[in-house]
Formats: sequence, structure tokens, C-alpha cells
Amino acid sequence: MPPRIDFISLGVRDVRASRRFYVDGMGWPVHREVSGEVLFIQANHGLMLSIWDRGQMHSEAGVDDDCSVPPITLSHNVGSSAEVDGLIAAAQAAGATVVSPGRTQSWGGYTGYIADPDGFRWEIAYNPTWSRHDDGTVTV
Amino acid sequence: MPPRIDFISLGVRDVRASRRFYVDGMGWPVHREVSGEVLFIQANHGLMLSIWDRGQMHSEAGVDDDCSVPPITLSHNVGSSAEVDGLIAAAQAAGATVVSPGRTQSWGGYTGYIADPDGFRWEIAYNPTWSRHDDGTVTV
Repeated sequence: MPPRIDFISLGVRDVRASRRFYVDGMGWPVHREVSGEVLFIQANHGLMLSIWDRGQMHSEAGVDDDCSVPPITLSHNVGSSAEVDGLIAAAQAAGATVVSPGRTQSWGGYTGYIADPDGFRWEIAYNPTWSRHDDGTVTV
Repeated sequence: MPPRIDFISLGVRDVRASRRFYVDGMGWPVHREVSGEVLFIQANHGLMLSIWDRGQMHSEAGVDDDCSVPPITLSHNVGSSAEVDGLIAAAQAAGATVVSPGRTQSWGGYTGYIADPDGFRWEIAYNPTWSRHDDGTVTV
């Protein structure tokens, strides 16, 4: 698994309040959104910032709301479900804790989560709707 | 301020333990490090991952260790101290809380911090040692 971050997801308490700041206030363009649940903003070449309802993040990423696990995930995207399983196994061999093995998520992708020594969540993801174009533009 | 993340910094409890996982375990190459304090790993085109001692992060980014503020910072880099001050003012006008105004940091840069509605810290930074090359390689 090379060191590559494709998504940064911030787990927020109120997506609408975040939208007022990032979109209405800062003027950042929304790539795609599901009102009140998640919004995506391109944040660098090949990098998407996701502003995500914290409860949904906790549920998918295996986070308890006990303050011990930071409400963010960093995602590393690969090209197939088999690659997800392979990288989760490699990360486990390297000392990561497997939080949830690869599984099909409600949004159509296949992802699993590992935790680093501080509990930071890394999502290993096959997302069939994700494309990274040569100029760095990401669509999801 | 365009939506662009140049650094992601994870505030960790023990940089050496993180190094064992990310570098020894995962085999990720270190761009630069200060032993036990911080290490930098390139994580995408124009993007650096920083693994940073949490106490130092708290001190610089104005974070109390009370669990209410996630131990990460997202950095947006600009070309001068004046631009730092200008973007902090713009973010404040957009609804951000100014955590610390721009100031010269011990490592030689000029940075300030704002907080979004959930307390997520954004660093607005002029870092004279940072370069982003055409191929996306970052040096710091």
C-alpha cells in the first residue's frame, strides 16, 4: 500500500452548519452532495474533501463517540474489492488494527477500515463511482 | 481562499510508535523527520502527510486536550505573511473562529489557525521551506 490519501472526511455534527461556512461563507464549490448527510469538495489534485454527518461516519467506520477516536477518516482508493481485502491484510501484518473487514457499503462501494496506533481510521476503498482524471480532477 | 489542502497533520501520542507502523511496518518513505517530534510523508500530488507530536500540535494550534477538538490540522499554504493575514480575515468574515492570528513560528514560518463550526483547525501558512514542484512532489 503506497502512501496515498484520496479522500479526507471530516465527521461533523451538522452538515448544514458546515455548508453555511464552507459553501456560503468561503464560497467553495460543491462537487456533489446529499442534503444534510454529506458534501464533497475538491481540495487538491486528486484529492476530495468530504464533509460527512458524524453519526453516519461513526456507524460506517466503527467509531464510538467516546472521544478516543478522532472524527476523521483518510481514504486510500483501489481498483477492486480483492485489492481492498489484500491491503487490509497487509496493513494488519504491519501492525494496524482491523476495525471492520471489507464489506459492501450502502452507497455501493466495498470498503474496510483499519486503525493506526492512535486510532486514526484509514478506509481502504473500492468505489466504483470514483474517477481521478489526468488533470487531477476527481469525480464521485 | 480556494479549497486546497497542502498538509494533513495527525497529532499522535508517540511519534516513535507511529513511525514503527507507517515506516517500518507499511514501508512508507520518510521525506524528512525530527526524531520523536515530527515526520513527513508525501501522500498525493502536492500533498504532505505530517505525523506530529500531539503536545506540540496542541501548543501551536491552540488545542486543549479536552477531546472537544480533533487532533488534526489541515493546512492551506500561501506565498507570504501578508496573504496569511488576509485569508484569516476572509475566513473570519465567512464565519470561522480565529484561534490564533498569524505569527512567526519557532520553525521559521508564519502561520495562523482558524476553526470551522466543529472546531476542526485549518492552518493558513506561509512556509518558506515548502516547495511544490510541477510533478506534484513536495519538499519541506
